[in-house]
Amino acid sequence: MSKVITLSIDAMGGDSAPGIVMNGVAEACIRYPEVRYMLFGREQQIQPYLDQDRKLKEISEVRHTDDVVTGDQNISQAIRQGRNSSMWKAIEAVKDGEAHGVVSAGNTGALMAMAKLNMRTLPGIDRPAICSVFPSQIGEVAMLDLGANAQCTVRNLVEFAVMGACFTRAMSGLDHPKVGLLNIGTEDLKGTHLLRDAAAILRESDLDLDFHGFIEGDDIMAGTVDVVVTDGFTGNVSLKTAEGTAKLYTQFLKSAFKSSILARLGYLLIKPVLMQVMTRTDPRRYNGALFVGLNGVAVKSHGGTDALGFANAVGVAVDMVARDLNSSIGEQLTHLNLDGAVETRQAARTA
Amino acid sequence: MSKVITLSIDAMGGDSAPGIVMNGVAEACIRYPEVRYMLFGREQQIQPYLDQDRKLKEISEVRHTDDVVTGDQNISQAIRQGRNSSMWKAIEAVKDGEAHGVVSAGNTGALMAMAKLNMRTLPGIDRPAICSVFPSQIGEVAMLDLGANAQCTVRNLVEFAVMGACFTRAMSGLDHPKVGLLNIGTEDLKGTHLLRDAAAILRESDLDLDFHGFIEGDDIMAGTVDVVVTDGFTGNVSLKTAEGTAKLYTQFLKSAFKSSILARLGYLLIKPVLMQVMTRTDPRRYNGALFVGLNGVAVKSHGGTDALGFANAVGVAVDMVARDLNSSIGEQLTHLNLDGAVETRQAARTA
Repeated sequence: MSKVITLSIDAMGGDSAPGIVMNGVAEACIRYPEVRYMLFGREQQIQPYLDQDRKLKEISEVRHTDDVVTGDQNISQAIRQGRNSSMWKAIEAVKDGEAHGVVSAGNTGALMAMAKLNMRTLPGIDRPAICSVFPSQIGEVAMLDLGANAQCTVRNLVEFAVMGACFTRAMSGLDHPKVGLLNIGTEDLKGTHLLRDAAAILRESDLDLDFHGFIEGDDIMAGTVDVVVTDGFTGNVSLKTAEGTAKLYTQFLKSAFKSSILARLGYLLIKPVLMQVMTRTDPRRYNGALFVGLNGVAVKSHGGTDALGFANAVGVAVDMVARDLNSSIGEQLTHLNLDGAVETRQAARTA
Repeated sequence: MSKVITLSIDAMGGDSAPGIVMNGVAEACIRYPEVRYMLFGREQQIQPYLDQDRKLKEISEVRHTDDVVTGDQNISQAIRQGRNSSMWKAIEAVKDGEAHGVVSAGNTGALMAMAKLNMRTLPGIDRPAICSVFPSQIGEVAMLDLGANAQCTVRNLVEFAVMGACFTRAMSGLDHPKVGLLNIGTEDLKGTHLLRDAAAILRESDLDLDFHGFIEGDDIMAGTVDVVVTDGFTGNVSLKTAEGTAKLYTQFLKSAFKSSILARLGYLLIKPVLMQVMTRTDPRRYNGALFVGLNGVAVKSHGGTDALGFANAVGVAVDMVARDLNSSIGEQLTHLNLDGAVETRQAARTA
């Protein structure tokens, strides 16, 4: 990867901006020497971090913006009032061709709306989706949509499958990722007709993916497939249920380890291996959700992450730019007469 | 609870029937001395268990049936071919007033379909739902629908809220259970219009429940509410995601504990407290999902549970019969002009 990549960074997005953002970029600057940064935000707050880090200063350019999109602004407020915000300007840099991709830890809804307005969706794609990676029993699993589209059409689901497969190929180099449609049973007749139609189209299509069919909620982390496709409502609830379950177990274990002297002693002995498990499932490690389907690379970092987490989100953007995700999506879509396939399915169902 | 309760048992349902079923009933017979059993299934397979247990034999009556509904039968097959099955006959006993409730570890879809055909839904209830209890950070949480209705109307969601609150009141004695609607954000404008309409109706209603509003996936196990209401698709995926996450962590921990001599030693020291955590989250402890909204009590046990788990499912049926769940649902529904409320909401939205 010798190509120089320029990323625009919303330095003011997230809970502890610009601190964690700047420290995250500093970390990323060690990991990805081929990347240059355009930093959007309040110059007087950003500059001190650059003055501390000569290397970072050399490869960064600060673009001052006064306004900040806050976490509690709703989407229409953000769009109306945020044209001079660090978020908007950072996205605009991608649209204008100054940067290859944008990373923000700010308000998710505003970021998606501004990215759609500025970058537009890829030709042939109806709706962008939020896509991210999680640990599974056998490695990692990508899942989309995680919340951009509460309701989806057959067409959306098929596009998500194409985009998710391309994302996984770019992230992990798998040639034919195994793709599953999330359902409430694995038999062909299960679920809504939307799911059955999407499954039929994917089964008959000539795409660079291995369509596994339907999967259930417990398959996500079992590693049954490489890519899990679902609507944004189900995806978001499922992701957050997993987070809640992990928290429940962590809390139960923590209080158990404190409950007796023997347990405290045992905890000291298992602490090193426990740390390995924590590292393996560390949310920071999986930080960085891609807004896939946009005509440009936009990555959302968790707002409450730290420098390490933000650097990982930068890494997702670097991978997507370096491996030219969007061209591969475009190339796959030409294999697929999606409008025709959806019509055929609907006709078959109503006949 | 001095009232004598009669339960009909599908002795042939589940992975290791009638063995685990009979051992489960034997366990339940110690816990619930007020219960009598009607055991439906193959007499020559059931009788040996009764011959071993004088107490159980005294309070049980065997009703021979030849046929068994299998796990791989689809619903229409089961309905067509299963009129002489242990499952059908056990349900029929409730319909005919011979038993107060039925417990089966058999095919979920067939059980729900047969229960609906025989028992019918409660007056005023459009659709029955699958309801169960899970551990949360502060105690327990009930959730419905877990998979009976892949798509739901506003009316269904409001009915689920009423039924879930009555279920929780019967299970745990809480007077005003806190009820949350599962969504992808907690703001009033989030999610589908179905959810917003259901929330508005619940907010304005005069029911014996404390409507909390929208919750997200990570609230389920955080204990934010006592009852989680959702459609059967989302509920099923969420439940199975939680199961998959728990399995992932268990597997990671198991292999970590084996990874070094120190870790093995530490594991021996923490084993007793780890067992406490396992007990607290033991799926057998939460076994027994109620088909709520039927004109009778029907409880589904997990097909792969053991005697302890089956006895817990019997316990759910006992609680529901003893605390007269269905009368309390009926009483709550009279507070609610649900048809009128749904119409008002729809008119408000399209105005």
